[in-house]
Amino acid sequence: MTLMVNTMNNMMNAVGYDRVRAVQWHGDRLRLLDQRCLPQQERWIDCHQVEQVAQAICQLAVRGAPAIGIAAAWGVVLAAQRGAPLELSLKQLRATRPTAVNLVWSLERMKARMAIADDVASLEREAQAIQEEDLMANRHMGYLGAELIETHADVLTHCNTGSLATAGFGTALGVIRAGVAAGRIERVYVTETRPWQQGARLTMYELICDGMAPTLVADSAAAYLMQSGKVQWVIVGADRIAGNGDTANKIGTYALAIAARYHGVKFMVVAPSSTVDMDTASGDDIEVECRNPDELLSVAGQRMVVRSAQAWNPVFDVTPASLIHAIVTERGVIEHPSLPAMRTMFACT
Amino acid sequence: MTLMVNTMNNMMNAVGYDRVRAVQWHGDRLRLLDQRCLPQQERWIDCHQVEQVAQAICQLAVRGAPAIGIAAAWGVVLAAQRGAPLELSLKQLRATRPTAVNLVWSLERMKARMAIADDVASLEREAQAIQEEDLMANRHMGYLGAELIETHADVLTHCNTGSLATAGFGTALGVIRAGVAAGRIERVYVTETRPWQQGARLTMYELICDGMAPTLVADSAAAYLMQSGKVQWVIVGADRIAGNGDTANKIGTYALAIAARYHGVKFMVVAPSSTVDMDTASGDDIEVECRNPDELLSVAGQRMVVRSAQAWNPVFDVTPASLIHAIVTERGVIEHPSLPAMRTMFACT
Repeated sequence: MTLMVNTMNNMMNAVGYDRVRAVQWHGDRLRLLDQRCLPQQERWIDCHQVEQVAQAICQLAVRGAPAIGIAAAWGVVLAAQRGAPLELSLKQLRATRPTAVNLVWSLERMKARMAIADDVASLEREAQAIQEEDLMANRHMGYLGAELIETHADVLTHCNTGSLATAGFGTALGVIRAGVAAGRIERVYVTETRPWQQGARLTMYELICDGMAPTLVADSAAAYLMQSGKVQWVIVGADRIAGNGDTANKIGTYALAIAARYHGVKFMVVAPSSTVDMDTASGDDIEVECRNPDELLSVAGQRMVVRSAQAWNPVFDVTPASLIHAIVTERGVIEHPSLPAMRTMFACT
Repeated sequence: MTLMVNTMNNMMNAVGYDRVRAVQWHGDRLRLLDQRCLPQQERWIDCHQVEQVAQAICQLAVRGAPAIGIAAAWGVVLAAQRGAPLELSLKQLRATRPTAVNLVWSLERMKARMAIADDVASLEREAQAIQEEDLMANRHMGYLGAELIETHADVLTHCNTGSLATAGFGTALGVIRAGVAAGRIERVYVTETRPWQQGARLTMYELICDGMAPTLVADSAAAYLMQSGKVQWVIVGADRIAGNGDTANKIGTYALAIAARYHGVKFMVVAPSSTVDMDTASGDDIEVECRNPDELLSVAGQRMVVRSAQAWNPVFDVTPASLIHAIVTERGVIEHPSLPAMRTMFACT
């Protein structure tokens, strides 16, 4: 695996891909690229306290399941540096977002480290390991996912699952980077991803920064794009994968999976194994976060809908395993996911 | 039918529904409610020349297939009043939008009238008839469509197909008005309808004006809403219905139809018979308008996507007849539409 990752690194560096790093540790503070301001402004937030990290997660300045987990780990380090009560800090960080399981996983890992040694240096090393392993995992998943794709494929992705959402390289977007670099992927279509427009704002930004030429489509145009035969794979990330392979991801993922199945388009989920939650039996047991209706009622800070209007604003949906062709993690690929196959790969999670 | 329509009118007036009129003839000018400014501003455009009407259609100040047809008919009257060359005016109006067939139908009807008598009064009567018949047709379709709906149903609609899109009452939204008035429909879900947000801006405005309490959802959340069992019918309008029942409508309609089929949710298309084009054999023969990518790249006048980005912005998609449970026109209901059934009802179109 190390050799493979190194080859991949060289290849990526050679073609200049993957420039963005949104979560940066600077020894005494965590710098976060404020993703609410992109692409208009590259504004950085310096977090000196754990509370600032919790707030940044809560308010979506940092987003993407793996990036949230990494930021939270650094939040624990900040708490330790400032002498804040660690148990309380863990609780505070855990309460920020309910759906992504990487957050819980990351905090559990920091807690396990604390049980062994709770000095700052030790916690700092653990957070660093979480961040570095995520980048390594993404590069490996990129390789594994790209291997599944026939040559000259056009692909569609949803939301942002790239360097902005992770330690770097990305999950689904990592597969796309690797697929483009390997000459397997030709065109990349990106959905807007209402209401936060992560596709329009973030994925387009990242891919164009890295020299690609993606095409933006409205969320609702994806099915029509598939009908026209222009897409061979839909490739998405995940916020939580249940024991049977059911996958919670950004709202709209489920609609894409249904449309993909209807058109015989393949559907790939890419996420680090920290996203897998074998304690959650199926999608029915995943809590889906609903956010403020104002996120739909106003657009770009401008009220779009008549006063007194109501809206329903779920952030995630759950795609059943039956609609997923392959789940790619750094541990390997599961085609046609099922509980037995998931158990075999993730029993010792 | 007259009795039914009268009963409907009384019922509607009694509950105060259907207040908005977006296309108004004032004897020497056409007043159009500028739908680009709603709901923030109720701005009216006075058209004194046919060119202004063509521009209003082209720039989406007036939109909705039936409303476009009606506005175009009044455009011909304005041309006649001002002594403009009528053939040229017809051509100019026809060139404004390629997909909606009501536009062509309406202009053909004005042309047929011209062949008999091209004096202003005669053309004015014809345009008036087109407008009044549309309102009558909508009220009748409302009754027919609502009859298909079991009681206590929750429904989802896409785009705006209401009084703003027609002479009044609406097509799909007419069925919803009638269904709510008859106590058959309980909750109404409205999709945003990117990129123009006709659902968020216009349908929410219209329904709330008329005292209802609709719930807005992101386009991409509709499938998840269906999964949760909350919707029994998806009810949409049409811009063109081909001879075999394939239906061109606002982008996103097709995705909703696929999701509806997947969940066993019924799918209803509501449109006046002027939307049916028996000369178009199937959906493959429908030209789908693609608009400026900037409509996706900017939101509410604010650039949302990094410079140099590309976007694909089709305005319509085509839903195959096989996904449609019922097509409702003022001539009657076709369940499970097919070429023979369509021929029987529309052969003499």
